[in-house]
Amino acid sequence: MSLLVVGSVAFDSIETPFGKVDRTLGGAATYFALAASHFTTVRLVGIVGEDFTEEDQAVFRGRKIDLTGLERVSGKSFFWAGRYSQNMNERTTLATELNVFASFRPKLPKAYRDSEHVFLGNIDPALQRLVLRQIRRKPKSVGLDTMNYWISGTPAELRETLKHVQILTINDDETRQLTGEHNLFRAARHVFKMGPQTLIIKRGENGAIMVHRGFVFAVPAFPLEEVRDPTGAGDTFAGGLMGYLASKGRITEQTLRSAMVYGSVVASFTVEQFGVERLATVTRPEIVARAKQFARLTTFRL
Amino acid sequence: MSLLVVGSVAFDSIETPFGKVDRTLGGAATYFALAASHFTTVRLVGIVGEDFTEEDQAVFRGRKIDLTGLERVSGKSFFWAGRYSQNMNERTTLATELNVFASFRPKLPKAYRDSEHVFLGNIDPALQRLVLRQIRRKPKSVGLDTMNYWISGTPAELRETLKHVQILTINDDETRQLTGEHNLFRAARHVFKMGPQTLIIKRGENGAIMVHRGFVFAVPAFPLEEVRDPTGAGDTFAGGLMGYLASKGRITEQTLRSAMVYGSVVASFTVEQFGVERLATVTRPEIVARAKQFARLTTFRL
Repeated sequence: MSLLVVGSVAFDSIETPFGKVDRTLGGAATYFALAASHFTTVRLVGIVGEDFTEEDQAVFRGRKIDLTGLERVSGKSFFWAGRYSQNMNERTTLATELNVFASFRPKLPKAYRDSEHVFLGNIDPALQRLVLRQIRRKPKSVGLDTMNYWISGTPAELRETLKHVQILTINDDETRQLTGEHNLFRAARHVFKMGPQTLIIKRGENGAIMVHRGFVFAVPAFPLEEVRDPTGAGDTFAGGLMGYLASKGRITEQTLRSAMVYGSVVASFTVEQFGVERLATVTRPEIVARAKQFARLTTFRL
Repeated sequence: MSLLVVGSVAFDSIETPFGKVDRTLGGAATYFALAASHFTTVRLVGIVGEDFTEEDQAVFRGRKIDLTGLERVSGKSFFWAGRYSQNMNERTTLATELNVFASFRPKLPKAYRDSEHVFLGNIDPALQRLVLRQIRRKPKSVGLDTMNYWISGTPAELRETLKHVQILTINDDETRQLTGEHNLFRAARHVFKMGPQTLIIKRGENGAIMVHRGFVFAVPAFPLEEVRDPTGAGDTFAGGLMGYLASKGRITEQTLRSAMVYGSVVASFTVEQFGVERLATVTRPEIVARAKQFARLTTFRL
């Protein structure tokens, strides 16, 4: 079923101990859409400048990704530059140039307005709500990502938006900042009161954990021989997760658990190469094969 | 089957955001033995001073723990004091007084010399080997824990001891220091060349991962409403793991996977209260019940 994503389409300059790339295609919505398109049709809402060329767009072609909602305006696209530490646990932002993203006002093409599943990428919570207002009927699921900047900068707006969200995907720091709680369960109860019934905490190389009113579920990160660039791992995870849920059409305990696994599996491909390089070449059979390996990674008998 | 453990029996003064305790019974061998005794008979080898009283010994009574090998000498027992940070991810050592532990030369009672499973707690690698030399026949399994102090201070001794070890249980930092590798699989291949065929990396609140020549297996930490004191979690984990393996008598892929789960389960009780307080009261039915919850925590269908 239809999955709409709103978020950044950007150019990234990335440096890790394994090398560096300049102005490679990135942005949360890019990673999300590529990941989710392995499971369902994705409708992308975003904005780019004149520097976004036919060549940049090529990566989306031949996939179930609808770019009608990708607005093109004069000016330059969102640009981010960052450097990762030796063990890649920390990263330093070297540059953030919002450019055309600064004046982004998401407008949904008519054909997007019946979207049944929606993912609100990390943008101004007021704009996230603006997207929801353009959807005709209440979606079956709304996922949301955010960051410290909005949690501390526009808390009231964020609270208002969270009322319409079922699935919140954030990291440990953001969870603490949003709820004031270190403990997973106490933090989740705070989040449940705000709206979402599912809290997913992304922990990078330490996997992810989901707390739902009725259950808790944990997945490790898929261990790899080589992690070259962690950029986009969280957005890829969210894309695999929401893409799988949208393909199943129903949010149940079982689909939520499986979605966590597929999110982790797709994210494990992203980090194998710089930018979207690996995510752009991974095939459905490769995803299925790694999901089976993932099951072996976590299976035991008591 | 018989499981021998050598390591510290100590007094700990611990401060966490949840409170503090003074001179409570601790030490790696204490946590290990209490945990393992839920699965098999444990033979403890250690040393204490005159400050170790009948009252301190009471916690071992009524359990399958043989204290014949706990040497009592004049002087004071090993003492450690530490303070945990607000989120308990870091701890500061405030005092380490080796006392009688400084002159510890492990001597195995005759009845211990047929031990089939052995765990060499974190002590001088030369002393770890001294224990192995007193075992009559090659044990079915030898597990080993160590720390940065020995990895950098007595690397040749440690290498020699590791030749006789099958299961190495260390943390991320120790793995990097021992092998010079950040990556799990490359680190494991280094370790395999040193002797152990199973590398278990303990990651605290992020669970544990096992790399064996033939497979890799990951477990999360069991999520808790309240973690009051992380002291002894790693030693409890090792005790549950080795205790389960000794009870099964065979080291197979399946017993190793289950052992990781039981190690995590028992460790989750330890951290609920200060020192060995919770570990000393946990019952077999509670362990079994939490193991089932653990299965629900990690189960999914593709």
